[in-house]
Amino acid sequence: MHLSEFQALLKKLYIHKDLDRGIKSTYIWLIEEIGELATLLNSQELDKTLISEELADIIAWTISIANILNIDIGEAIVRKYPNKCKKCKDSPCTCVK
Amino acid sequence: MHLSEFQALLKKLYIHKDLDRGIKSTYIWLIEEIGELATLLNSQELDKTLISEELADIIAWTISIANILNIDIGEAIVRKYPNKCKKCKDSPCTCVK
Repeated sequence: MHLSEFQALLKKLYIHKDLDRGIKSTYIWLIEEIGELATLLNSQELDKTLISEELADIIAWTISIANILNIDIGEAIVRKYPNKCKKCKDSPCTCVK
Repeated sequence: MHLSEFQALLKKLYIHKDLDRGIKSTYIWLIEEIGELATLLNSQELDKTLISEELADIIAWTISIANILNIDIGEAIVRKYPNKCKKCKDSPCTCVK
């Protein structure tokens, strides 16, 4: 799926609720998903299906924050992640840290 | 940008570091970005440029976790986010909460 397509889908389904809830309350929903991911990562056996759902939720709530602020997340990603490491300029990255 | 394209880019640039660092340490990098976003959201004036960079970073670290586990994030999103709300089945969503 294209990022802008996913952002548009989330806007269509949820923007009324996102705007009503506001940005800080939406951030807390994101944190809830972050916590759920921690629980899964702390399990003895990693459940890839459940983890993949949490990762999808984290990205969705992150994009909801973008929607509230009218940020184009695809553009933001292209700007922040060019086709090489932004720090060392290499591909693959050769940064020490 | 297509989600699978972004996932492939991150894999090309960073998979050796992601695997070396491991999943829990990568989760902590994600949490660092989550904290940086909180700082920006707590500012008196919201800086949309900086916030968009943090949102991009959160999505990137989330996808790094997917890369470590060989999870196709595009597939996970399509499965978790069909073209209507998964709970109320409506578009836009009409869930009360």
